[in-house]
Amino acid sequence: MKVINIKDIKSNIGLEVKINGWIYNKRSSGRIVFLVLRDGTGFLQCVVEEDNVDVNTWNVVNCLSIESSVSLVGILVKHPKNEEIELKTKSILVIGSSKDYPITKKEHGPEFLFENRDLYLRSKTPWAILRIRDQIFRSITNFFYEEGFIRFDSPILQPTSCEDTTQLFEVKYYEEVMYLTQSGQLYLEAGIMSFGKAYDFGPVFRAEKSKTRNHLSEFWMMDAEMAFYDQEMNEDIQEKMVKRIIKDVLDNCELELNILERNTTILERCIKEQFIRIKHKEAKRICKEVLNIQNVVELDDMSTEEEIALGNYFQIPVFIEDYPMAVKSFYMKKYVDMDGVERAKNADLIAPEEGREIIGGSQREDDYEVLKAEIMKRNYPIEKYEWYLNIRKYGSVPHSGFGLGLERMVRWITGVHHIRETIPFPRTTIINKP
Amino acid sequence: MKVINIKDIKSNIGLEVKINGWIYNKRSSGRIVFLVLRDGTGFLQCVVEEDNVDVNTWNVVNCLSIESSVSLVGILVKHPKNEEIELKTKSILVIGSSKDYPITKKEHGPEFLFENRDLYLRSKTPWAILRIRDQIFRSITNFFYEEGFIRFDSPILQPTSCEDTTQLFEVKYYEEVMYLTQSGQLYLEAGIMSFGKAYDFGPVFRAEKSKTRNHLSEFWMMDAEMAFYDQEMNEDIQEKMVKRIIKDVLDNCELELNILERNTTILERCIKEQFIRIKHKEAKRICKEVLNIQNVVELDDMSTEEEIALGNYFQIPVFIEDYPMAVKSFYMKKYVDMDGVERAKNADLIAPEEGREIIGGSQREDDYEVLKAEIMKRNYPIEKYEWYLNIRKYGSVPHSGFGLGLERMVRWITGVHHIRETIPFPRTTIINKP
Repeated sequence: MKVINIKDIKSNIGLEVKINGWIYNKRSSGRIVFLVLRDGTGFLQCVVEEDNVDVNTWNVVNCLSIESSVSLVGILVKHPKNEEIELKTKSILVIGSSKDYPITKKEHGPEFLFENRDLYLRSKTPWAILRIRDQIFRSITNFFYEEGFIRFDSPILQPTSCEDTTQLFEVKYYEEVMYLTQSGQLYLEAGIMSFGKAYDFGPVFRAEKSKTRNHLSEFWMMDAEMAFYDQEMNEDIQEKMVKRIIKDVLDNCELELNILERNTTILERCIKEQFIRIKHKEAKRICKEVLNIQNVVELDDMSTEEEIALGNYFQIPVFIEDYPMAVKSFYMKKYVDMDGVERAKNADLIAPEEGREIIGGSQREDDYEVLKAEIMKRNYPIEKYEWYLNIRKYGSVPHSGFGLGLERMVRWITGVHHIRETIPFPRTTIINKP
Repeated sequence: MKVINIKDIKSNIGLEVKINGWIYNKRSSGRIVFLVLRDGTGFLQCVVEEDNVDVNTWNVVNCLSIESSVSLVGILVKHPKNEEIELKTKSILVIGSSKDYPITKKEHGPEFLFENRDLYLRSKTPWAILRIRDQIFRSITNFFYEEGFIRFDSPILQPTSCEDTTQLFEVKYYEEVMYLTQSGQLYLEAGIMSFGKAYDFGPVFRAEKSKTRNHLSEFWMMDAEMAFYDQEMNEDIQEKMVKRIIKDVLDNCELELNILERNTTILERCIKEQFIRIKHKEAKRICKEVLNIQNVVELDDMSTEEEIALGNYFQIPVFIEDYPMAVKSFYMKKYVDMDGVERAKNADLIAPEEGREIIGGSQREDDYEVLKAEIMKRNYPIEKYEWYLNIRKYGSVPHSGFGLGLERMVRWITGVHHIRETIPFPRTTIINKP
């Protein structure tokens, strides 16, 4: 007997097969029972007719409860009308029973679902979201391999913080104190002096007390750095990567996108058309004059409202370039514009459809003295950055890099509302079970 | 002018090219200077002859110091005698100078090298090791994709410990205490009830005070779990994966293995021949009777000495199966052998060449009552395992899984002695800089 997965039913039509899985749904219609079987690779309607099975099997089917694990044997046939493939079931073996499965057809609140996240994972929506997450992870790693990057795992435990110290989680590390990483970027910059192009992709942590749909305390971040890259090349490779991610998801995740009822019109446009690139100054002007947003502050960061409005306005990802240095990080390469404003050679990439910032990147300051002066100006402890400054002391090169928050990207591509849906076991100020 | 990487020199012989990189080595011989250029993708000899360059370039070359970053232009030629490709240099542009680079040709102690890990990364040995690490990571992710696994990121911050509580790092998490993960396995077991086959691959943490060449406080662990898999299928897929990793490294990392002077005889054997599978009881007998090891304790774990001796004896990886349950984890499926000893349906995979344990795996206990009794027997706090027990309550299935420590695998394949060499920035009780 051939044991197959549901993803392979098309190539097995007409054959008798065995499929292992769980009962996802069940409805009866007199002498016929319709089961929906799930096996991790997909969902399959299995028809059990009283006339076609023995008494024992018929009794088993009638007692079968949701989420029981089973081994089904039957013949794969095409439904005469809708062309869908289903299993004409011959026999059922119950492997593990399931009594009073707590997640039922009735609407549960998110609190209940996330307190039972270990079970809620079995439902169609999380299944579809986390499979798209897997595809996005895979697209990113494949992309970097093809582009000649080396994976370089930055350390999670770091002796110093990168920037904002208020959001750090402290760890008692033997007799010392260390901090959970907020970004691997500084380490990666040392890495590319050996490998040329490198990326890391691991968990990062922010002790952020805000309870919004945008924040997780633990999430996965991809950092990439490239030697001999300026900011224009940096944006080129980001655009290429985002297009690749979207294309892979559209090509490989049709079932998942259908389950999520994702309208893919804009995603399809993102593959075909060039992303927009505008200066921060112009972005602020559009917000004020075209989008009529109140209280636009020209030399400030982009607000949530402004990011969402710009995304809706362009309907395609937009690089917002050259933020005022005052609102950006010390390591960014800077210049003084015609109005005398110190600006960064950077860009944030804003996604449409309320995706907001999905990538932040910049050219990095490669001049030892300029970088040192910036660190001093910000009153950061200079002795902690000695090793980082050394990167500019021994064969400094122009280099650039960017960071992508995996969950932000998954949320945009899947179109789900709350970021907690995009990671298997979310960690926030309220949800940390199990 | 074509800008190329050193990895692509073969397809550019006879052409004038530009290569960006760093000066790795330099020696003079009268009117000729030999430079070794590195660019992250490889190393290239560049010949500068006084007669072939202008006075300015010749002066630049003579002042050029180790680790300066440069842009070289020249013609790629094959050396008439040894067939090696080299660059006949025409011009040199210095991008970033490098004065008194601290890592010189003289022997430095490991303390010095790891205090300057950010610079030491640029040396040939770390470059080669970490590129093989990248290849192993890639082999694993490709393998799992081809085998139908979904990547499932287990949480790093966990409310409870899995087993050994003495090696946990504590994190102050808002008003609570959480712990850094030691393994994602328990979460992954919940995951496969949705996805069938899943793996995670992230950092794990052990507060281990021992200062040996085998221990890191932070390292990367891959956990895989498979529904409807027994222990035999579990060992089959592990063997297939290890063979795939070795084949990929041998196929793609010739330069790196040469730099490390790795004798690959045994690795080549590992691809062709079946791994050994023996019972723990038999392994202990061999240790005692064949290998004449003193003080072999039959019902104990395998000692370091025993693991190394068995690896040397078989000269190929060996699965040691069915350890006494008393020395193994609570979640393993157990049985009572003919001597009345409670044993686990498990296997540790021991690598030859002092690689020691590279994989640990087992079938998992799928019976609710049996698992509950084992947790009670070990005096673990049962309320913390309620969710984990639930996996056996709703459609339990036979399932198995295994864990692979990335650094242990990298150490074996590269043949380096100390585990700290196998990760970009090692974290131990003594080395945590930068």
